Amino acid sequence: MPEFMDVHRGMVGITEEGLKEAHDADLAIQDDEAVVFKQAWADPTLGIVYCLSEAPSREAVQRIHARAGHPADEIHEVPLSV
Amino acid sequence: MPEFMDVHRGMVGITEEGLKEAHDADLAIQDDEAVVFKQAWADPTLGIVYCLSEAPSREAVQRIHARAGHPADEIHEVPLSV
Repeated sequence: MPEFMDVHRGMVGITEEGLKEAHDADLAIQDDEAVVFKQAWADPTLGIVYCLSEAPSREAVQRIHARAGHPADEIHEVPLSV
Repeated sequence: MPEFMDVHRGMVGITEEGLKEAHDADLAIQDDEAVVFKQAWADPTLGIVYCLSEAPSREAVQRIHARAGHPADEIHEVPLSV
């Protein structure tokens, strides 16, 4: 299954609790699109969240994020990793 | 130890071997700055590499990447993760 790194901007001041709530909202519906959200990291100062997933497509990732209320600003397929 | 997500642009066409070589060049000298590079993911189509590390500071991450020949374009401290 392809891996994706997506980027959310405009999240200045996001808290640990806010990040967990957003991630849980994704997890609750991810099976609908066969997406597996793996990890997410947040820079609350600049308001950026990076989110790593496995999914059938970029569009599947975006459909889940959009339904969960936080569409991604960028979604990159990352076929290479170390 | 703080975690950082850094971003390298202009890497269009990067290969699995190229990513591994770049990562190995970081690993070879990371102890000089007490940095631990953990993972990296590449989008060869748009030429973006995301790199996750633990380090004493943003500057320590950049010194290693610069000495290894691939300074980062952005380095974000990511104190929150899920």
